[in-house]
Amino acid sequence: MQPIVIVTYDWVPAFARGFVRDLRVRWAAEEAGIPYRVETVPVRPKTDAHRAMQPFEQAPVLRDGGTTLFESGAILWLLGERSPALLPRDAAARAQTIQWLIAGLNSVEPFVFALETAKMRDKDEEAAGRAAARLAARLDGLTRGLGAADHIAAGRFTIADVLMADILRVVDSLGGLGGHPALAAYLARQTARPAFVKALADQMAHWTAADAARARG
Amino acid sequence: MQPIVIVTYDWVPAFARGFVRDLRVRWAAEEAGIPYRVETVPVRPKTDAHRAMQPFEQAPVLRDGGTTLFESGAILWLLGERSPALLPRDAAARAQTIQWLIAGLNSVEPFVFALETAKMRDKDEEAAGRAAARLAARLDGLTRGLGAADHIAAGRFTIADVLMADILRVVDSLGGLGGHPALAAYLARQTARPAFVKALADQMAHWTAADAARARG
Repeated sequence: MQPIVIVTYDWVPAFARGFVRDLRVRWAAEEAGIPYRVETVPVRPKTDAHRAMQPFEQAPVLRDGGTTLFESGAILWLLGERSPALLPRDAAARAQTIQWLIAGLNSVEPFVFALETAKMRDKDEEAAGRAAARLAARLDGLTRGLGAADHIAAGRFTIADVLMADILRVVDSLGGLGGHPALAAYLARQTARPAFVKALADQMAHWTAADAARARG
Repeated sequence: MQPIVIVTYDWVPAFARGFVRDLRVRWAAEEAGIPYRVETVPVRPKTDAHRAMQPFEQAPVLRDGGTTLFESGAILWLLGERSPALLPRDAAARAQTIQWLIAGLNSVEPFVFALETAKMRDKDEEAAGRAAARLAARLDGLTRGLGAADHIAAGRFTIADVLMADILRVVDSLGGLGGHPALAAYLARQTARPAFVKALADQMAHWTAADAARARG
């Protein structure tokens, strides 16, 4: 099997390290034993070659033979199609997995973006307060959805956990999990998985290598 | 074939009419000739029965036999699995459709939420200005992604068009499509489809019936 190619940035500043979304794809590939290698695009300035693959100028992009695919959620879905370790084959379990994948992308993460934007980019305390309250309501919903389960969908590990745990890592980094102990415990469970640990270490090693390459000029 | 059940609100205020996301499911069902009927949950106060189906207290929910599924994006995916009129069977076209469905949900709509929230809910001019600029950058990306095509994915109508056009309807209602004529033309093309026209009329008739039921007490 030819390894798939995960395209990510050539370098990012310290605050983004560990949070570039190629992590989601690395993690899923590690879980499923799908071989991959990493290629890069310049983080700045953005290039026409990058925009031709990813019109929003983001990472990651998946290349697989002649196919390219962007959106980490879509790449997770595609890897799920290839491996039952990531996406169950039973119709009901599969639908529940897709439901929670999309809930992460559209009912939780936009509220994380809002808090992150107000707090870190705009440094607007008032807007950050409103965003934090709205995010907390979504985390209440997520807590209800999780219930007493170990995993968010289908009673087992799936791509919905990859996505949701990675979203909650950002919430946690913004100090937003304090009032939601069940989600903090869920996050700790997911990020203790060996495939996550390896994926995170590999992403961090990628940035260390990028620094070394820059230092060499 | 038993009709599927689309669960939506029993009533919404005027500003939300035509924009409740059951529209996406109605539209897709009309395109595919999938029979459906509509049931309701109270818009306020939210009920335990609603939360049991939809932990974020939103609509729509799909009921189909014993299965329930929430997230309009996930419901579109499920209807796509049932009808090639909505989701191509060819692997590359299918992946491209999922990619653009998810791009709508995670790379475009969160920026629409941000503008809508700042402008309509918070009435914060400064935050709205920042949100409008960020949304415009995403619409530039979407314009690049659309190129000269009639449809956003796979060279044909798909669930990605249902989602993206419905997102752009909100942008348009906020006055945000002025600088993006290719997207305005795309939106006009999609909303001219008979299935969309019928779905919108049916949703509006639902609210008219709701008003009448309230007037009767």
